[in-house]
Parts: sequence; structure tokens; C-alpha cells
Amino acid sequence: MNEFELIERLCRHLPLNASTVVGPGDDCAVLDLGVADRRFLFKTDAVVEGVHFTAETDPRLAGVKALARCLSDIAAMGGTPTHALVTLGLPDGYDLGRVESLYIGLGECARHHEVAVVGGETTSSPGSLWLSTALFGWVTPGRCVLRSGARPGDALFVTGELGGSLASGRHLSFEPRLEEARWLAATFAVHAMIDLSDGLAGDLPHLLKASGVGAELHSQAVPVSRTARDRARKGGRSAFEAALTDGEDYELLFAVSASDAVPLMDGWKTRFPGTKLSCIGRVTSETTVTIRDARGRRNLALHGYVHLQEP
Amino acid sequence: MNEFELIERLCRHLPLNASTVVGPGDDCAVLDLGVADRRFLFKTDAVVEGVHFTAETDPRLAGVKALARCLSDIAAMGGTPTHALVTLGLPDGYDLGRVESLYIGLGECARHHEVAVVGGETTSSPGSLWLSTALFGWVTPGRCVLRSGARPGDALFVTGELGGSLASGRHLSFEPRLEEARWLAATFAVHAMIDLSDGLAGDLPHLLKASGVGAELHSQAVPVSRTARDRARKGGRSAFEAALTDGEDYELLFAVSASDAVPLMDGWKTRFPGTKLSCIGRVTSETTVTIRDARGRRNLALHGYVHLQEP
Repeated sequence: MNEFELIERLCRHLPLNASTVVGPGDDCAVLDLGVADRRFLFKTDAVVEGVHFTAETDPRLAGVKALARCLSDIAAMGGTPTHALVTLGLPDGYDLGRVESLYIGLGECARHHEVAVVGGETTSSPGSLWLSTALFGWVTPGRCVLRSGARPGDALFVTGELGGSLASGRHLSFEPRLEEARWLAATFAVHAMIDLSDGLAGDLPHLLKASGVGAELHSQAVPVSRTARDRARKGGRSAFEAALTDGEDYELLFAVSASDAVPLMDGWKTRFPGTKLSCIGRVTSETTVTIRDARGRRNLALHGYVHLQEP
Repeated sequence: MNEFELIERLCRHLPLNASTVVGPGDDCAVLDLGVADRRFLFKTDAVVEGVHFTAETDPRLAGVKALARCLSDIAAMGGTPTHALVTLGLPDGYDLGRVESLYIGLGECARHHEVAVVGGETTSSPGSLWLSTALFGWVTPGRCVLRSGARPGDALFVTGELGGSLASGRHLSFEPRLEEARWLAATFAVHAMIDLSDGLAGDLPHLLKASGVGAELHSQAVPVSRTARDRARKGGRSAFEAALTDGEDYELLFAVSASDAVPLMDGWKTRFPGTKLSCIGRVTSETTVTIRDARGRRNLALHGYVHLQEP
């Protein structure tokens, strides 16, 4: 059983209620708390030492990551984060100076994004140190972007560059795309959006499955990071494979009407001149993912972290 | 450095904002989200295998506890819980049937309290299994009870019976005092309230410190559980000591005006005839905790889990 099958099985046991607009299965839950011009966003996530950072990681950056991962999920809904809580699982004998640095980093990230950290909890934890973050925020009702609205014919876009995030350290220093996502949702009819944490090959299928559609990707259009290209030259996996499967990119993947593609690209270049935006393919009614390159068109397996051939 | 000194040190690094009515240091954070007749409550907590339950614990009960601990904190504010998120830290090779049972228990508890579980996250976790729960709820503004409102002369009450919770298994099967707390806050001016998770000797000082007051307890009035009494007879710690320090009681401790004490006790007996309510002492302006018994009056150290003499 993989993670997503497990989650699906566990979620069957969990009740919802009338004020739940969106429950499990999107980047955030969406709640209707009786405020006419706001829907509220609720998200939780965790970083674990030995999984999301190591004993050698600068603890301030690990603290930033503990919050920034959740911020990226709020971004993927087009939302604004407001309040966080942090629970710390602390092994015996852990260096308290290091713990304090984690919180300094988390606090700096919170301040930068105007998020209040309104409390939390500490517990002892046999094994690894972990930080679990709960994040609350809001979104304007008409601008709340789900995973489920992509339509056949839509253009698929991705922000930034993909691959090599763990090697370059970008997984610790990425800037959640909050401003970009709010601009997108305010300026265009974004049909569906997701943040890329498991790699394009892992997360694109989530968006497509939620929307009941498939996609055709243009391999040459997928933006590959310099780190992934450098590593490929030195004999690592192909740059394209790294871009699709390395994960922890924390970029946005989204779908808009094909007719919005050109004005969107033009508007983006003016508004965010320092950040790449790439149209990587289109949404299809056939529920498969295919890759088109110089040699033709072939299927991409629908599971994340797939092993791919050189395009 | 103990847990509370650590939390105080870590919280210095964390920003707040204008919509934060109450930040770290109470049972829940209180948020003003622009709804006139509601304040919102936000709480996070975790249960860790080997700390809050063991490999031998019925996993359904461990799942109940993961949510019920947070429910008890919502109760301590006089609130109503509405939405939860759950993050699971899963060690390699963990029995998935057992994980599913955790979620079945958590789901049953959520359904019982009309709480929607709107999502969550899973992560691998070297070491112990843990479940981190984030809980959201609301409270009527004038009925939100903090830790900080106790006044000299107030009567101190505690619900239920204290001590022996780990031995009796009550720490896994307690019923969060949500209904009782809402009734109290709706019917009387409750000046301060806290839920007892660290034992009366651990949590009373939190309420007193937040209120800038002290207390005098009447040792004979402290309600001791049958398990604690049985164990004391068999040569364990004294029943009084167990009641003050065992912890995990998840009962309510609260302060009301002395003039409300009798009507409150009368009203309680009618409304909750099956649940004990005890007036255990009074709030003092002197910021110490003293114990009064047949032999006179003596100081109780202000730290939790203190070792006590037989009263």
C-alpha cells in the first residue's frame, strides 16, 4: 500500500460536516465559517529529522521549512495565511540551542509572511525530532482554486524550475508562491492548481485525477533547474527525469483556458520578471499522461516518482 | 530547563498579529476572524507511542485520545469544536491494520462530538508512531473563559475525581467536559478555567500564575479517584499525592465568585447528577499555594509533579 492508498483507506473512517466546503484530498481543507466574503483554509504538515532535514541541516532553515511547506499549500489554493500552531516532538538529550534555532527560523518565516504563531505544544518523542505545523488562512470565495477544475483543452503551466531541490538546498530556502498564486487567481480564471512537493510526475496525476482528465506534456517545455542539468552532465539521472521526480520543488502547477495562455504569459512577465513561467502541455479528455518529444508520443505511468527514459 | 521554561523561551521568537485575541499560554489560542458573535479557538497537540500510549494499547483508544486531548482544551475555554486535521508519523514496517484502528477510534470520537476531520498528512518517522491533531472551534465572545481571570476570594472547583488515570485506563477513555464547560460558562461568570492534564499540582499553578494570584486548598475536599485510593491502600503513594500529581485527569479546574459557589453546586447536581463537582479551596492574593488540613496550613511548591507528604 502506498501513501495515497493508505490515506484513502484512513479517510473513509473520518466524518465531515456541513461547514466543510472541501475536505481531504486538496492542498488545504476549505471551511465556511459564516463570513460572506471569506472561505477559510486549514492545513497541517510536519518535518521530521532524518526525513525532511538532517542532523547537519542549519536548524534555522529546518524551522523555515516547517512553516514554508504549509505556506506553499495555502498558496496552491490562492489564499493568504494568517495563524499557525507548532507542535514539537523532542527526543531526550536533544540540543536545546538547536531547538531554539528551529523556532528562530520558523518565527522569521512567519514574520515575513505576516503569520501569527499563536501557540503549540511540546512532547517528548522517542526517536527523531519533529515539528508539526497547523496553518490557518483565508481566500476570497470566487478565487479559491481547487485541484478539481481542469478541463480538456486547458493549458498547463508551471512556475520556476524543477529538479535538484535536495542537491541545491532549495528545499530549505524556497519562497512559497503566495503572491504569484493570489495574482493568478485574481487576474485569470485558474481552473485548477496544486503545489509541487512530490515532483511533477507525482503531483500532476493528483490534479488530473481530481479533475477527471489527463494531460499531454511537451518534454522540451518542462523547465529544468541548473542543478538538475549540472548533475545530469556529471552522470546522474537525466535532467528531465530529475525535473519530474526529484520532488520538493514547491512550485505551482496550474491549468487555465488555452485562450488565457498568451495574456497570462504576458502579464506574468511584467508582474514577476525574475521568475520563470512555462507552458508545459495541455489537458486532455483521455485520462492518461503522455509525453511528446522529438521521437513522438509515449505514456507516462500515473504513479509518482516513476523511472523515466531520456526524452 | 523544564518544558514550560522551554516553551517560554521558544515563544519569544514567534510573532503575533492583530486578529490574535489570545496567543500562546492558554488552553487554546483565540482568534477574531471578523464574525461578531463568535471567537474562534485553535489548538494543536500530539500523542506519541511510548509516551501517551504503548504498543499494547488498544489502537482505537489511542486514536480517541489523540482527538480527545484537544477536545478537553476546547472545553477549558467554554467552546465548541468543529474541525480537525491529523498528521501521522509512521515508522517503517508499522502494522497498517493497527494504524487503521487508530483512525477508526479517532473517527468515532470525532463523530460523537460532531467534529469534521477535514484532512491531514502522513510522513515517515524514524522512531515512534505519533499522531498530531490540530483542532478548530468557536466560542461566544462573552463566554470564552481564559486562565487569567481568577480573583482573590474566588471559590475553586474541580469536576470528577483525580488520580490513578494511567492505572485505571481512564486516560484513554475519558469524556472531554465540553457540555459541562459550556453549561458553566453560559450559566455563571466563570472567572478562569483550565483542563487538568498535568495533575492539579501541575496545572493549578498555570491558572494562578496567569491570574497573578495564589490559592489555599482544603486537602479533605480534593476528590480522589477510587483507583488512587485502592493503590494507596496497597502501599503506593498516598491517595492525596496521586490526586495532585498523577496527571491525565482531563477534568476542569475553575474559579467563580464565592457568592456563586452554592447556586453553582445546586445547579450542577440537577444538570449533571452523575458527575462529582468539588469545591477544593479558594483563591488568595498571596501568590503561593497552601494546603490546609487537620494539622494546619503548609506550602505546596509551585512546580508540577511535586512529591508531597501524606496530608
